[in-house]
Amino acid sequence: MKKVAVGILGATGAVGQRFVQLLTDHPWFEVTHLYASEKSAGRSYEQAVNWKVSAEIPAVMRRLIVNLCDPDLQNSPRVVFSALDSSVAGDIEERFAKRGFVVISNSSNHRMDADVPLLIPEVNPDHLDLLKLQKKKSGTSGCIITNPNCTTVGLAMVLKPLHDAFGVTKVIVTSMQALSGAGYPGVSSLDAIDNVVPYIKNEEEKIETEPLKLLGRVCPDGIINALFVIDADCNRVGVRDGHMESVTIEFEKKPSVNEVIQALRDFRALPQELGLPSAPNYPIVYREEADRPQPVLDRDIGRGMSVVVGRVRKSAIFDIKLTLLVHNTIRGAAGAAILNAELMKVKGLL
Amino acid sequence: MKKVAVGILGATGAVGQRFVQLLTDHPWFEVTHLYASEKSAGRSYEQAVNWKVSAEIPAVMRRLIVNLCDPDLQNSPRVVFSALDSSVAGDIEERFAKRGFVVISNSSNHRMDADVPLLIPEVNPDHLDLLKLQKKKSGTSGCIITNPNCTTVGLAMVLKPLHDAFGVTKVIVTSMQALSGAGYPGVSSLDAIDNVVPYIKNEEEKIETEPLKLLGRVCPDGIINALFVIDADCNRVGVRDGHMESVTIEFEKKPSVNEVIQALRDFRALPQELGLPSAPNYPIVYREEADRPQPVLDRDIGRGMSVVVGRVRKSAIFDIKLTLLVHNTIRGAAGAAILNAELMKVKGLL
Amino acid sequence: MKKVAVGILGATGAVGQRFVQLLTDHPWFEVTHLYASEKSAGRSYEQAVNWKVSAEIPAVMRRLIVNLCDPDLQNSPRVVFSALDSSVAGDIEERFAKRGFVVISNSSNHRMDADVPLLIPEVNPDHLDLLKLQKKKSGTSGCIITNPNCTTVGLAMVLKPLHDAFGVTKVIVTSMQALSGAGYPGVSSLDAIDNVVPYIKNEEEKIETEPLKLLGRVCPDGIINALFVIDADCNRVGVRDGHMESVTIEFEKKPSVNEVIQALRDFRALPQELGLPSAPNYPIVYREEADRPQPVLDRDIGRGMSVVVGRVRKSAIFDIKLTLLVHNTIRGAAGAAILNAELMKVKGLL
Amino acid sequence: MKKVAVGILGATGAVGQRFVQLLTDHPWFEVTHLYASEKSAGRSYEQAVNWKVSAEIPAVMRRLIVNLCDPDLQNSPRVVFSALDSSVAGDIEERFAKRGFVVISNSSNHRMDADVPLLIPEVNPDHLDLLKLQKKKSGTSGCIITNPNCTTVGLAMVLKPLHDAFGVTKVIVTSMQALSGAGYPGVSSLDAIDNVVPYIKNEEEKIETEPLKLLGRVCPDGIINALFVIDADCNRVGVRDGHMESVTIEFEKKPSVNEVIQALRDFRALPQELGLPSAPNYPIVYREEADRPQPVLDRDIGRGMSVVVGRVRKSAIFDIKLTLLVHNTIRGAAGAAILNAELMKVKGLL
Repeated sequence: MKKVAVGILGATGAVGQRFVQLLTDHPWFEVTHLYASEKSAGRSYEQAVNWKVSAEIPAVMRRLIVNLCDPDLQNSPRVVFSALDSSVAGDIEERFAKRGFVVISNSSNHRMDADVPLLIPEVNPDHLDLLKLQKKKSGTSGCIITNPNCTTVGLAMVLKPLHDAFGVTKVIVTSMQALSGAGYPGVSSLDAIDNVVPYIKNEEEKIETEPLKLLGRVCPDGIINALFVIDADCNRVGVRDGHMESVTIEFEKKPSVNEVIQALRDFRALPQELGLPSAPNYPIVYREEADRPQPVLDRDIGRGMSVVVGRVRKSAIFDIKLTLLVHNTIRGAAGAAILNAELMKVKGLL
Repeated sequence: MKKVAVGILGATGAVGQRFVQLLTDHPWFEVTHLYASEKSAGRSYEQAVNWKVSAEIPAVMRRLIVNLCDPDLQNSPRVVFSALDSSVAGDIEERFAKRGFVVISNSSNHRMDADVPLLIPEVNPDHLDLLKLQKKKSGTSGCIITNPNCTTVGLAMVLKPLHDAFGVTKVIVTSMQALSGAGYPGVSSLDAIDNVVPYIKNEEEKIETEPLKLLGRVCPDGIINALFVIDADCNRVGVRDGHMESVTIEFEKKPSVNEVIQALRDFRALPQELGLPSAPNYPIVYREEADRPQPVLDRDIGRGMSVVVGRVRKSAIFDIKLTLLVHNTIRGAAGAAILNAELMKVKGLL
Repeated sequence: MKKVAVGILGATGAVGQRFVQLLTDHPWFEVTHLYASEKSAGRSYEQAVNWKVSAEIPAVMRRLIVNLCDPDLQNSPRVVFSALDSSVAGDIEERFAKRGFVVISNSSNHRMDADVPLLIPEVNPDHLDLLKLQKKKSGTSGCIITNPNCTTVGLAMVLKPLHDAFGVTKVIVTSMQALSGAGYPGVSSLDAIDNVVPYIKNEEEKIETEPLKLLGRVCPDGIINALFVIDADCNRVGVRDGHMESVTIEFEKKPSVNEVIQALRDFRALPQELGLPSAPNYPIVYREEADRPQPVLDRDIGRGMSVVVGRVRKSAIFDIKLTLLVHNTIRGAAGAAILNAELMKVKGLL
Repeated sequence: MKKVAVGILGATGAVGQRFVQLLTDHPWFEVTHLYASEKSAGRSYEQAVNWKVSAEIPAVMRRLIVNLCDPDLQNSPRVVFSALDSSVAGDIEERFAKRGFVVISNSSNHRMDADVPLLIPEVNPDHLDLLKLQKKKSGTSGCIITNPNCTTVGLAMVLKPLHDAFGVTKVIVTSMQALSGAGYPGVSSLDAIDNVVPYIKNEEEKIETEPLKLLGRVCPDGIINALFVIDADCNRVGVRDGHMESVTIEFEKKPSVNEVIQALRDFRALPQELGLPSAPNYPIVYREEADRPQPVLDRDIGRGMSVVVGRVRKSAIFDIKLTLLVHNTIRGAAGAAILNAELMKVKGLL
């Protein structure tokens, strides 16, 4: 099978580096173009990037010349992943889509647009239907699809089988989020060592709204959001990778602890059925030990694509409490977008 | 004024060291006796202790000889602070109380005993009345009084003015607790660096029950607990000192954000009126910055005796969300017990 | 005594904040003016600063309006401390000196200038004589004096009594430096958590040269450097404050371990004699425990103005090995400059 | 090829777990027996171990029953790896050797015994000749061979090609060692967060002596040590895995910086020639970036079996300064012993 040529917008940033890493030797995609800001354009990737995700830049990427984020560049691949910062992603992604590109974005700008799919292949693969609406509206063959915020991904994947089975009505979540979520240099070491910062700008809003779209229903005119309510509190802790979430959930039906654990363990979805290359065998892994999940031990389960859950127990106020862990730069960012692209490939949308 | 001679049970442990530090140069108390296990007994404090709370052991304490925890020791002071581990505290404290000692304990063993005051001087000074019941029952002049769990202290102090004003009905709390709470050596560095441990043994039960006793009402036969419900999730994070708590509260009355902030800011109580030496000017300090409180910046406010609150805001599900910080080894342990002793001194109970 | 009015250049940065903190309630100095870049000028200090050195900005400083670094500002105090970044300090300090200001600088730019004193009051108070040379050359009453690099300060203070007694010939030093040395935001948390960075730009050169000037001899024409050789390797470790240095020293005379310890313990100097307000009782504190000094335990000894030494032992190759700790933002920066100013005050140079 | 059955002594500890991890799916060895102390014996490995090196215990090891460290156990494999604590390793290893076992040990007890090989296959494969001496002396076919201390391994591997080419005469080394080197629970988090501990018990002695044996020459009567001198200072820093070493070296010949870099880069040895399964392609990897190696980025190069060097530069006092990084629990412990076993297998010694 000939690989699909792809580009990476914002290839030098922290999430861009994860795209580069995860797309090297990908069985279906081949990175032919890297894009970044003026500061990097014209230089080799090796010269432009401050590489931080592993010891070495993948050899095949070193010599690639970084381009400006310009959709009119000749010979560009028609599929681009976007790791752009939200301060610039909105415009650039639109320009690429208008010129006929498929933009698979990790940025927050268009996530809540009525005609843009906010996609987790295990949760709402049918939301790809929105692309018809989007293309009709724009009159081009280009489009934008997005993956959720890193903290949202973990929460929505856990809520999916539980909502289907028991009907979620209320969710209170406190996150303890990793430093890599803020990019590089991101959080100052003086804010991280021996400290917790109880605030992440614009984060709680995303966690309170994105899952409602993700668990919503596709209609001819767009998405009808799920109707439960989420209350989020976000904290930055001194962890390199892996967002922890302490979650308390109220359900319509009143499931037992065991029923909840069973529903999480039994959860399989389309990416597992289709055997998508980045899909983990188990979208959710449940750990029985009293003190798990832990970032340092569990974040790489399923090559960082599984959400790891532990401590499912009765709540005295709602119904169930649990703790979850999601690898924020893999399942919560670059890996999420790549899984979206893999689903689109299978669906003939690339 | 002649100082009251006091002893410290468990003087070599982490909390014991804080007692030694905070009681050095105390205006009302003078440490004359230190007690610990067989391993330490007979040695000078300097030899017995692995001192960790500051650069140097206070000079006046260095040469004190450590005694066994034996209430029959001659010339013992009649007042002892207990920093004993809960694996041994139960028995030893009872033996001391039976022999007529006033035992002011930080240990959890007797906190929920029906006739033992669980005391925060700002919250429930009238619970000292339980001592009559206790002494009557035991037939001795000795007694035990306790301070709450370190995480409870912060929560109960914040709930106190809010419960009085608006009637608390439900509380969901996720803690991010400091390493010193587990003593020394306590948490392994390999569990702390680049990690969060989502479980602390026996901790959630304490936080879910102790505040109900603290905010309860004294009756002739004991305490009638407050009637609200608490749901707790406890996590250990890589912070040296200072427990953070993410709290969501439902009230009977529906206060505005400003009313809650005002109630916290206006809160003063008996220790402030009496000018107790360890009482902070403000039991609760409210910070307006979006990203506070933070352990490294705020834990020492009020010499570690103030609880610091920030981020009071609307909850979509209950009424109010907020973040609080309590210095776990000062306001949450040794400082708490010393403030209890100061109140007892003023009340003529020592 | 009327306090000397002083200003702080670069008052909003990390070292500037330490100046503000240490000069609040100083017995001899009163901060009347704060200076920073265009971004901050015109705003109150409270608005301009991202305050990080303690819970709260000192009340007296909050409302001070930040000025541009302009020597022609009316009513400026004639004495300014400089915490400017070295990218701008060179020019600005010169402009202030030319306009008659006494500039007491922590910046590196003019440290090695032939007519600028590089001063540690315990080490080379006579180097203030250079000011005559400097003023003669410039033809103004203004002048610049500097304190050394933070790592240099600790090393030079330890070498001083040893060089006087035993004649230092060679020094090999490996530093493990704290994060605050890079300012705020400074080092990224992703470079600090679970990591060591074995390089600090321009740092080794300073440590290899500054001590030679500090331990040099004043002559009519300037300083004749000390003649020993220093080899430095600098590393950044995940510590908030306190630089550790592993030092191996060769001497002309061959002192015993005890003689070295005794020389360090006996060391007193002019600041101690004069009782300068910021001078610690003991410029060097020796710790006998096998595992000290440690940053978290020992950095605040002498209010951060003592250098703490431990592990003096035989070297198999040179003569003596030892470990030292210096509080990099107090004795190594703001506190150093303030002690310099105190000495100048006593000498009638302010 | 039939796999060689092997056992692991001390299988539940930190290094024992690394053995279990690295020997799972090993092409030449199959773990059939696990041994530990009385506390664990009789339980399944899953029950006995507090597994910490990755998310999950390898499936094939879970159900293995842990045995006492008893050489008379029936059906024991004749080859055992020892990860025993040095407090018990001495005796147990001797008992196994006397009963005819080949004991491949990571423990320090017998490293400096005159007839025990202290082996790094890249450095001194010919030292296996000592086994003849050992077997002759003991009169059994059993034997003990050892790998060096974790910090020694990195240093000796770097010194090997340099000593061969340029003749090492003096080495001063300051280590910054990872927490995992102390096992689990090992270092308290309160000694690790925001701290450096400038002392590791018995460590400096090992680093000052072991390399001299490793680089020594085999003679009929044993090893004649290399003649240079090492001066070591060991520090514990807040890093999970990966020991950093700051090294200053004097040579007989005076190599240029480039000659040293070239010698390090060109270094290949017997394990590479033989293609031993655990041998890295490059025993030493040189990094040109100014700020490398760093533990978090470089410790896993060569699957943790390469030593990573950077910052080779002129020393003002000796000849060359450099920084090296060694993965302390892989190349510095379990991986080292396994590579030793692989070499013995090829040599027909198992």
